[in-house]
Amino acid sequence: MRELIFTGLGLHDEKGISLRGLEEARNADRVFLELYTSLLPDFSLERLEALIGKEVQILSRRNLEEENGAAVLGAAEMGKAVLLVPGDPFIATTHVSLRIEAEKRGIKTRIIHGASILSAIIGLSGLHNYKFGKTVTMPFPENASETPYNVIAQNKRRGLHTLCLLDLKADEKRFLSVKEALRMLLAIEQKKKKRVVVTSTFAVGAARVGSNAPVLKADSVEKLMEFDFGEPPHILIFLGKLHFMEAEALVAFAGAPAEFRRLAE
Amino acid sequence: MRELIFTGLGLHDEKGISLRGLEEARNADRVFLELYTSLLPDFSLERLEALIGKEVQILSRRNLEEENGAAVLGAAEMGKAVLLVPGDPFIATTHVSLRIEAEKRGIKTRIIHGASILSAIIGLSGLHNYKFGKTVTMPFPENASETPYNVIAQNKRRGLHTLCLLDLKADEKRFLSVKEALRMLLAIEQKKKKRVVVTSTFAVGAARVGSNAPVLKADSVEKLMEFDFGEPPHILIFLGKLHFMEAEALVAFAGAPAEFRRLAE
Repeated sequence: MRELIFTGLGLHDEKGISLRGLEEARNADRVFLELYTSLLPDFSLERLEALIGKEVQILSRRNLEEENGAAVLGAAEMGKAVLLVPGDPFIATTHVSLRIEAEKRGIKTRIIHGASILSAIIGLSGLHNYKFGKTVTMPFPENASETPYNVIAQNKRRGLHTLCLLDLKADEKRFLSVKEALRMLLAIEQKKKKRVVVTSTFAVGAARVGSNAPVLKADSVEKLMEFDFGEPPHILIFLGKLHFMEAEALVAFAGAPAEFRRLAE
Repeated sequence: MRELIFTGLGLHDEKGISLRGLEEARNADRVFLELYTSLLPDFSLERLEALIGKEVQILSRRNLEEENGAAVLGAAEMGKAVLLVPGDPFIATTHVSLRIEAEKRGIKTRIIHGASILSAIIGLSGLHNYKFGKTVTMPFPENASETPYNVIAQNKRRGLHTLCLLDLKADEKRFLSVKEALRMLLAIEQKKKKRVVVTSTFAVGAARVGSNAPVLKADSVEKLMEFDFGEPPHILIFLGKLHFMEAEALVAFAGAPAEFRRLAE
């Protein structure tokens, strides 16, 4: 059986994997793992190997990108290989080319999905998924760009929320924080002056979504910059128009000040 | 411990639950389940109860919406209750008010995330998540609306893809199909004549995402209407501008005709 199964680890730790994912890993000839496209804060390789009952080989960005996943493809040409990835596979688009290459070589590919930050943050915040516009990633300062500011502005003009992912390099232990992201957006505001992200703008910050104790805080940008979100990963949401149930959810779950209700239609 | 844990079942069957979710259900005093907000095509209550090792009580739409989840809240006031839901909790916004009510009563709430169609279809198609605009749901004919057409048009104008969820009433075994949805959109096109959805428009249809054999097909609307997607649930994506890697992915994974490459930037 020449097969490559991309399996999502979901959020936070090794217990985010689904029962189907665990079953496939147990039945695989070789199991690989990458941990650089996202952070699983409480992940333990030892516990994962104990659950699967076999050795799990960690692959670096270099293994998967520069060497084009040669180890994974080689294993899948000999039998059944599983590649474990944080979250839901292919949300980090970096592995799409590996899947294309596998299919070209006649290796059957399958996906076992896992929880993703994309839906988890929507559920945690109580915001409505059809109220979100285009998603954007806030880059590190060395790659500073006005794109996130422009996307937030475009979405807001249409009354839509913006999910703002914060850049990370898990293999270098670098994670953009809510505070740094807001500081960068305020700096862009200084130049563009379109009042898209000012200190009084209401937004939502979150940390460690998918853990047993995620932090969720809705407040003004000024207050969010003072708020202690703790350890990474962090994430941000800018708000469009709120449905009254969304405002109630932010007051109940995110400690939003009552003024949030004024944002509701 | 007064606690209510909303736990995602992920996609397709009872094996979509995460290890953390299973652990919490095993440790709960009472376990509830709803199956009406989405379809898990291969789900078995008997197998789920065997996995959890205790009885699971199924709740209807009436139990959760008209009776405001009285059974769940009552159980959570006495101990630890788990409510199992398809997909990732709160993507079906119907349970948000139950969570607000629980918090008001001083019941601690937590979420254990599961795979969601929102990220799964992005990963399966190989499309890039930051290229999607606002999501929309295509309603059943009796609730026909021009909103989906307008959302597709707005997204397309900005070069963005549209995730078009298809309405379902799992408790009535009613599921909108790709074919019916396209027929409705073509009917709206007849009236509005903005060339948003015509027979030659390229789109992507999928069925049973999250199963071991999902169907994914990229082609013209005309061809997609003839294509046999099989059993529900179905889903649709309308395309904005494609990155060349997205076009390659659709050719490799979705049997897209080579002309799709012309949609790439």
